[in-house]
Amino acid sequence: MNTNHLAGIIATAIAIASPFAFAEDSGSLESLTRDPNQWAVPLGDYHSNRHSTLNQINATNVAKLQVAWEMSTGTLRGQEGQPLVVGNVMYFESSYPNYVYAVDLNNVGKIMWKFAPEQDKFAPSVACCDVVNRGVAYADGKIIAAALDTKLYALDAKSGKVIWSSQNGDPKLGQTMTSAPLVVKDKVIVGISGGEYGVRGYLTAYDLGTGKQVWRAHSVGPDADILFDPGKTIDAATQQPVGPDSSIKTWQQQEWKLGGGTTWGWYSYDPQLNLIYYGSGNPGTWNPDQRPGDNKWSTTIFARNPDTGVAAWAYQMTPHDAWDYDGINEMVLTESTINAETIPVLTHFDRNGFAYMLDRRSGKLLKATKFDPSVNWAETIDMATGRPKVNPDKMTKAEVNVKDICPAAMGAKNMQPVSYDPRTKLFYAATNHICMDYQAFTVKYKGGFPYVGAIVNMFPADHGDVRGRMIAFDAATGETKWTINDTFQDYSGALTTEGDLVFYGTLDGWFRAVDENTGKVLYQFHAPSGIIGNPITYMHDGKQYVAVLTGVGGWAAIGLAEGLTKGTEGLGAVGLGRSLADYTNLGGTLVVFSLGQ
Amino acid sequence: MNTNHLAGIIATAIAIASPFAFAEDSGSLESLTRDPNQWAVPLGDYHSNRHSTLNQINATNVAKLQVAWEMSTGTLRGQEGQPLVVGNVMYFESSYPNYVYAVDLNNVGKIMWKFAPEQDKFAPSVACCDVVNRGVAYADGKIIAAALDTKLYALDAKSGKVIWSSQNGDPKLGQTMTSAPLVVKDKVIVGISGGEYGVRGYLTAYDLGTGKQVWRAHSVGPDADILFDPGKTIDAATQQPVGPDSSIKTWQQQEWKLGGGTTWGWYSYDPQLNLIYYGSGNPGTWNPDQRPGDNKWSTTIFARNPDTGVAAWAYQMTPHDAWDYDGINEMVLTESTINAETIPVLTHFDRNGFAYMLDRRSGKLLKATKFDPSVNWAETIDMATGRPKVNPDKMTKAEVNVKDICPAAMGAKNMQPVSYDPRTKLFYAATNHICMDYQAFTVKYKGGFPYVGAIVNMFPADHGDVRGRMIAFDAATGETKWTINDTFQDYSGALTTEGDLVFYGTLDGWFRAVDENTGKVLYQFHAPSGIIGNPITYMHDGKQYVAVLTGVGGWAAIGLAEGLTKGTEGLGAVGLGRSLADYTNLGGTLVVFSLGQ
Repeated sequence: MNTNHLAGIIATAIAIASPFAFAEDSGSLESLTRDPNQWAVPLGDYHSNRHSTLNQINATNVAKLQVAWEMSTGTLRGQEGQPLVVGNVMYFESSYPNYVYAVDLNNVGKIMWKFAPEQDKFAPSVACCDVVNRGVAYADGKIIAAALDTKLYALDAKSGKVIWSSQNGDPKLGQTMTSAPLVVKDKVIVGISGGEYGVRGYLTAYDLGTGKQVWRAHSVGPDADILFDPGKTIDAATQQPVGPDSSIKTWQQQEWKLGGGTTWGWYSYDPQLNLIYYGSGNPGTWNPDQRPGDNKWSTTIFARNPDTGVAAWAYQMTPHDAWDYDGINEMVLTESTINAETIPVLTHFDRNGFAYMLDRRSGKLLKATKFDPSVNWAETIDMATGRPKVNPDKMTKAEVNVKDICPAAMGAKNMQPVSYDPRTKLFYAATNHICMDYQAFTVKYKGGFPYVGAIVNMFPADHGDVRGRMIAFDAATGETKWTINDTFQDYSGALTTEGDLVFYGTLDGWFRAVDENTGKVLYQFHAPSGIIGNPITYMHDGKQYVAVLTGVGGWAAIGLAEGLTKGTEGLGAVGLGRSLADYTNLGGTLVVFSLGQ
Repeated sequence: MNTNHLAGIIATAIAIASPFAFAEDSGSLESLTRDPNQWAVPLGDYHSNRHSTLNQINATNVAKLQVAWEMSTGTLRGQEGQPLVVGNVMYFESSYPNYVYAVDLNNVGKIMWKFAPEQDKFAPSVACCDVVNRGVAYADGKIIAAALDTKLYALDAKSGKVIWSSQNGDPKLGQTMTSAPLVVKDKVIVGISGGEYGVRGYLTAYDLGTGKQVWRAHSVGPDADILFDPGKTIDAATQQPVGPDSSIKTWQQQEWKLGGGTTWGWYSYDPQLNLIYYGSGNPGTWNPDQRPGDNKWSTTIFARNPDTGVAAWAYQMTPHDAWDYDGINEMVLTESTINAETIPVLTHFDRNGFAYMLDRRSGKLLKATKFDPSVNWAETIDMATGRPKVNPDKMTKAEVNVKDICPAAMGAKNMQPVSYDPRTKLFYAATNHICMDYQAFTVKYKGGFPYVGAIVNMFPADHGDVRGRMIAFDAATGETKWTINDTFQDYSGALTTEGDLVFYGTLDGWFRAVDENTGKVLYQFHAPSGIIGNPITYMHDGKQYVAVLTGVGGWAAIGLAEGLTKGTEGLGAVGLGRSLADYTNLGGTLVVFSLGQ
C-alpha cells in the first residue's frame, strides 16, 4: 500500500469532487454562455446563434460518430427542447408531465435528481400542438423550469428542491407554458402559450432570487399593458414613434382582449444594447374577417429593456395575419456589413416564409427574402413601408376555401431554431415545404375552448413528396447555398460547429451530421423516435459530445402524438401518400454521441 | 445511361424484392429455428438454448460494437421479451397495450405494420408485476401475439391483419397473459398468468390455422382437467405412475380450485421425443397454512404430448411452496454425458435457487445444485425422494414474520432466460442475489382481487450492495466458473454466441458483452432504460446484429413502473440505500447493435 498511498488519496479526492464545482467556479451566466465546453442557455448563447467553436468532431472524422450513452425521458410526447450542460452536470426537461432531470456526466447513468411537478390536470387538454416543452434555463445555481400548467419553478441545481414557484397563467383560460425561459441578469424572462384559445399574450419578468413578478408586457392592448412609451417606442416599419394606442387602434372594439400575440417562442438578449428580442404569435381567431385592422402587435418582433420591459421598438411582420403566421421564431443576433458599415443585426426566419434582417438597434428592415421557394401569400416585403405585398388571391376570408396557400399554417419554418456560423455567414435551417387550403369561419369565444375559426388542410408544396428542406441560406442575399430535401417536415433545430458540420434531425428519426460547405450527409443514425429537439454540443473530460432529445410530436406530428388513426392524423400529417406512423414511433430518449475508437 | 443500364435493372429488381421472400423460402418452423441467421422462436430454438453459432462479432472485435439503429416501442413499461427475425423482417411486441410491429430490415426505420389490439381496460389492474410482455411467435406466415387481456391473436405476417383471435381467459377473474406463445407443428401453445389472484393455471393448445382450442391442461385439479393418465403419467420424483387424483389429494377440500400453478413462463419442445416442457407457478395464496399438503402440481415441471396435452411426467420442485417459488422458468434441453452415456437432459434454473438437471425422457432427477450461495430455505434436494430438505427455520407460517429467507420471493432467478453454450457446457445466467422476511396471513378469495396472503420485505443477500449476479455455471457439478456482481437484480436474458461472448443487460441499463471464458466485460453501453428483455442475434446482408428490447419494469422494478415515491417503491425495490430511480428511467426502446468501422 505504501508507494501507491498518495496516488490513492488523490484518486479518492478526485472521485468525491462535486460535479457542480466547475459551474460554481465559472462566474456569471454571461461568461458561462461564452464557454464552448458548456451549453448554458437554451440556444447556446444570448445571441441565439446555436454555433459552437468546438471542432474535435469534424468533417474528416464524423463518420466515426456513435451513440455514447442514452437516457429515456420517461415520457412519450414531443421533445422540442435541448439539454443544458453546466459544469459536469446535464439538465433537461421532458414533455408533459415535465420531468426535470440533473444527470451526472462524471458517472454515466446517474440521475442526481428528478423533479416531477404536480400539475393542473386540465392543462394538457388546452395544449394546441402536443404537450411539448422547449427546455430549462440555468442561472446562479438554479434551474428554471416551465411546467405546462403555467407554473414556473426555480429549483436548486444541486438538489432539485423547489426554491420558489410562480403562477404565470391559468390553464382554465387556455393558457399553457411550453417555452424555455431565459435568464437575463437578475430576471427570468418567460412567455405564455395559448394562441388558439383567445389568450392575450404577454412576456413576464420574474425576480431570479424571489420569483416575484417584476414586469409584464402584453403583446396587444392599451399602452400601459404593452409597456410602450408612445413617444419613444419606435414602429420599426416606419421608424417613427408608435404614438398613443398603437395597438388598440388596430382592433375592432374590444377584440384586442382576445387578441392573441402569445409569446411561446425563444428569447434573445444583447448585453451591449441591453435589449431582449422575441416575437409574438398570431392574432386571436384565425378568421381574419372577425378582426378587421392590422391587429397590432400580433406577429411582431419586439425589442424591450429587460430591466423595465419597456419596448424600444416593434416590427410587425404580418399585419392582419390571415394564415396563422405566428412570429415567435428565434431572433439570431449577428454582425453584418452593410454598405461598408458593420452593424448589429437581428435575423429571423419567420413562419410566413421570409427571412427578415433588421438593424437590431432600431428595428429598421435591412432585408427580407423568401427562404422557401413555394412562398406565395406575398411576393415581397416592401422595403419602404416594411409591409408585405400580399397576394390578393391568397387572402383568406370567412366561408371561402382559399386554395394552395404557401406556406401552410405550420409555417415555412416553425419554432425549430436555426444555426448561424459566423465563418460562412450562412444560416442553417431545418424548414418545412408545405402549403394549405384555408377556410375561415366565424367562431365565438368561450374561455378554455378553442378560438380558432378556420379549417386547414395541409399538403406538400408542389403536391410532391418533399415536406421538409434543410437549407444553408444567406439571409443577406436570399441565396440558398445547398438544400437537403426530406420526406417529412424538418422540425428540429440546427447546430453548427467549427468542425465544419451541421447537425439536425428529421421527423422520421434520422439524426444527421452534414458537411457545412456542401450539404453532404456525412453521418446519420436512426434514433428511437422522430426528432423535433435541438442538438447541442459540449466537452467533458477532454472529449466532445453532441446530444439531442429525440421524441416525435409537436404540431408536425400531432396525429401520431394524439393517437389518431393512421391516415387521419389530422393537421400534423401532411398527406399525399405518406403516413409518419410508417416511419417512426412515439418515444422520448436523450441520445448522446461521441467519436468511436 | 447505356453501360449502366443492365446494372440499373438489376438494382431495381433487388430493391422491389419482398423482405418476406426469404422466410417464405425457408420451409418449416423447425428448419427456421436451426438457421442462425434468423431468430424464429422466442428462445432462439425449440431447445431454448439461446445460443447462436454466429461469430462475426467476437471477443477480439466486440470493443467496436456500437448502436446500429433504434426504435421506440411506443410504451414506457417493462419489456421482458425479444424480437423475432424471420427473413428480412423483425417482429416484436411492446408492453401493454401490446403493440405488435413488423419492421423492414432492408429499410431501416420502416414500420411495415403495427397492430394495436383493443383491450379489456380492466386487465392492467390485475397484472401483478407490471404490464409486461415476453414476445410473439412466428409460424406459417402468421405472427401469434398474446395481449394482456388474455386475447390471443394470429396476424398475417405480411399485413398485420387479424386472421383469428381466441379468448384464453378473463381479466375479471384476475387472468392475464404475458408469456410468449410457442408454435409446435399445427398448434399454438400458450399459458395464463394470475397466480396472485387465485387463478387455477392451465396451458392451452390452439389450432394454428383456425384458432380453435384443441386441448387445455390445468396444473391442478381432477385428472381429466390436468390431462394426466393416472396409470401412465410418471411422478418424476418417484419414477412411478402418479395414480388417480394425484393433484386433488394434495389439497384441502376445494382449495385446488384456487390452486394457482399458472403457466406464465417459457415453453420448450423436443421434436424427437415429441414432448413439450414448461413449469407451473406458485400454489394459490402465499399463506401456506391455508393450504396443507403438497399442493400438486404447483411449482412443477411438466412434460406433455403437444398433440394431445397428456402429461408424460411431472416433477414438483417445491412441494407445499411457502415462499412464492414459481416453477415457470425456462427448460433448457441439452445432451449430457452421465456415467459414459449421452442422454437428453433438461436443465432448469428455478426460482427456489436450485438448478435442476432431469432426464427429459422420464423426468428423473440427475442433479440439483444451488446456483446462488445464499440459498437457505433448503440445503439440498434429496436425490432419493426428489424432494427438498427444507430448513425448518425458513418455513413460513401464518402470522409469523420469518426472517432472512434466501432467495426472496422474486427468486434466485426469475423468468429471465439463461443461455447454454454446448462448447463450454456452461449455463450463463443473470440471477438475483436477494433474500426476504416473509409474514403470511389469512386471506379470503374474491374474484379479480389479490389472493396473496403474505407481506414480503426483500433485501440484498448478506445485507450487502450486490443484488444481482451474472454467472457462468456448470449445472452438472454445481460449480460457478465466474461471477459478475451487479448492484441491482440481474433480470435480463443471456445470449451466448460462438464469438465467445455472453450478452446480457442490467436493471440499471447497461448492455454488456462479456468474455464467455473469463467473465471480463469487453463492451458495455448505457441504454435508454433498464434491461429486463432478452438479447438476440441475427445476420442481415452479411452483417451480424445483436438486438435487445430495453425498458425497465417487471417485478424487479415494479415501484418504478407504478410511479411509487422514491424510497417506497415496494416489493421491487430491494432496499438498503439504493434507489433504482437514481440510475434509470422508464422507457421502451429496441436497440440494435453491430460492429463499427
